[in-house]
Amino acid sequence: MQTELSQTLGIEHAVFGFTPFPAVAAAISRAGGLGVLGAVRYTAPDELARDLDWIEAHTGGQPYGLDVVMPAKKVEGVTEAEVEAMIPEGHRAWVKDLLARFGVPELPEGERAGWRITGWMEQVARSQLDVALDHPIKLLANALGSPPADVIDRAHQRGVLVAALAGSARHALHHKEAGIDIVVAQGYEAGGHTGEIATMVLTPEVVDAVSPLPVLCAGGIGSGRQVAAALSLGAQGVWLGSVWLTTTEADLHSPALTRRLLAAGSGDTVRSRALTGKPARQLRTQWTDAWDDPSGPGPLPMPLQGLLVAEAVSRIQRYEVEPLLGTPVGQIVGRMTRERSVQAVFDDLTRGFEEALDRVNRIARRSGPS
Amino acid sequence: MQTELSQTLGIEHAVFGFTPFPAVAAAISRAGGLGVLGAVRYTAPDELARDLDWIEAHTGGQPYGLDVVMPAKKVEGVTEAEVEAMIPEGHRAWVKDLLARFGVPELPEGERAGWRITGWMEQVARSQLDVALDHPIKLLANALGSPPADVIDRAHQRGVLVAALAGSARHALHHKEAGIDIVVAQGYEAGGHTGEIATMVLTPEVVDAVSPLPVLCAGGIGSGRQVAAALSLGAQGVWLGSVWLTTTEADLHSPALTRRLLAAGSGDTVRSRALTGKPARQLRTQWTDAWDDPSGPGPLPMPLQGLLVAEAVSRIQRYEVEPLLGTPVGQIVGRMTRERSVQAVFDDLTRGFEEALDRVNRIARRSGPS
Repeated sequence: MQTELSQTLGIEHAVFGFTPFPAVAAAISRAGGLGVLGAVRYTAPDELARDLDWIEAHTGGQPYGLDVVMPAKKVEGVTEAEVEAMIPEGHRAWVKDLLARFGVPELPEGERAGWRITGWMEQVARSQLDVALDHPIKLLANALGSPPADVIDRAHQRGVLVAALAGSARHALHHKEAGIDIVVAQGYEAGGHTGEIATMVLTPEVVDAVSPLPVLCAGGIGSGRQVAAALSLGAQGVWLGSVWLTTTEADLHSPALTRRLLAAGSGDTVRSRALTGKPARQLRTQWTDAWDDPSGPGPLPMPLQGLLVAEAVSRIQRYEVEPLLGTPVGQIVGRMTRERSVQAVFDDLTRGFEEALDRVNRIARRSGPS
Repeated sequence: MQTELSQTLGIEHAVFGFTPFPAVAAAISRAGGLGVLGAVRYTAPDELARDLDWIEAHTGGQPYGLDVVMPAKKVEGVTEAEVEAMIPEGHRAWVKDLLARFGVPELPEGERAGWRITGWMEQVARSQLDVALDHPIKLLANALGSPPADVIDRAHQRGVLVAALAGSARHALHHKEAGIDIVVAQGYEAGGHTGEIATMVLTPEVVDAVSPLPVLCAGGIGSGRQVAAALSLGAQGVWLGSVWLTTTEADLHSPALTRRLLAAGSGDTVRSRALTGKPARQLRTQWTDAWDDPSGPGPLPMPLQGLLVAEAVSRIQRYEVEPLLGTPVGQIVGRMTRERSVQAVFDDLTRGFEEALDRVNRIARRSGPS
């Protein structure tokens, strides 16, 4: 699976794997794809530096990348405490009641929420960037909006390609005008932040809108058939996130969550603002149902919602409170039915791609009605 | 584009075209696909017989099919008047107010709503079926649920293949158990009644669930790249509906609606219960916005909603009241930017398919990083 883009990046397969786990990122790069580490959960630059060092030491010299979150609406020059103060008391009380209703225990004394608002703030993203550009990353991706011009310049000065996610052709054109190198077209069926337009329609629209910029196809991809479909649509590669969550290298710290992912069907996700305040696809749970219930207060805008629910999410995860226990994941979760190694996923992707292509070639060559 | 299914049916391309217009159906069959006439708008069997005769005379001997609507929940043994009586007065008053607010004129004396509930009732679908099976149709499709066992038997006795639409693998398995021959996997992005699961995920799920039954891929397809993608996903053909609406053979009876379709982007549709009571993708208008507004009364269940709005929809269409003027259509509407003949659509599909396949073959053959 070699495209011009994969050749430029010096990788064997045009498969880009987004993951919050260093071990998964390294395994993706070792398997011939490009492992892209999600930086949003890092609050301290030295933790990120340590994990990038670890990846560097475990990719066998293969390239890797980093994904940061710089929202188009900047949260700048304010402290976390100032953002905290913007959250209505009514919302706090509602969350407290909901957790009490499900008997969710408090975190132990001295333990903080694992997820912090700070990962979403530009100054934090910039300190992550300083760390990242000290490492030989090959790709810098931004999950929300185009990165600022100076960030793109700094990346380019170091020979790092810059990618940005887009849910519409209009977003993609904006990225192109901002000077990014790769657009990740993220369809409705994808995990995490998504728009309304499904991959089958979105990918060729974005390809045509930003041509000759390369486009990666994201959303709904977990098998070689889907890789062949994505490349048919004009993509120069695929961007996969969900499928790695149930690999043996992933560390969800929750056997119950892994079980839920393995058991979930393609209809068991929901696009909800419960997680961050912007629509993001995730497992449907009683937590998302409560947030999406018109009789409740409803989610706050980003970044307030993420800050409001951070501790609650940590408590739900720590104590594995199953009715509320979710995670961002795409509709492809329905095909994630057993734990496999990252290498096994790659073997399936490449073999499935060849089989799909053989089948379509037979269809193309077959002559007239029998 | 020859699959086992297209060979069985004796058609040149594995392209199935659903349309309410006899002239479009005939043109699809002439172009080498299988034209499938939607029967829901026919109330009188003799009208359907006349139009099937016309198609028969204009396909140049090529096969064609019919699509009927037999809802899983039967509306049997009741008259239209009895169903009418189930509609709450509050809903009627709300519709009346909404039409008045937009200055929608009444229909002229003696003119009836073009769309009638009767097309959705089983006794009508059965009389349509009697007409259809008197014609040499090759395919009988059912848009909602599996057709009754005796209908499947009658079709099979006449050598007619039976297809049914499915929005999930579970639905598809139900169809298989009922004895149907072809499953149409209809993704989220499709026009008309759709589920939540997008084509990229749904198609391979359905293919694997019902194998070895052939599956047609529906939802989001309007170009040869998308045909190649659909076949990559394991489909034995594609099922297109939206793309024909702006062909020169289509007769929407509304230049304003044609303009709206040509101008709409992929983000300008909505999956709403406004049309029939079940979620159906359509152009987003102030009509759908009003029905989807939580402050309004909201849509009634099928079949009441269709009956409630039939006259309103006829009035909106007849007088081309643009803010309210919509139609069922999929997200592919964003690529329907000019009127073309059905043959031109086919030429694009086949040429685009070959180009996409060539590109993917180059990707597969290309060796290692440069």
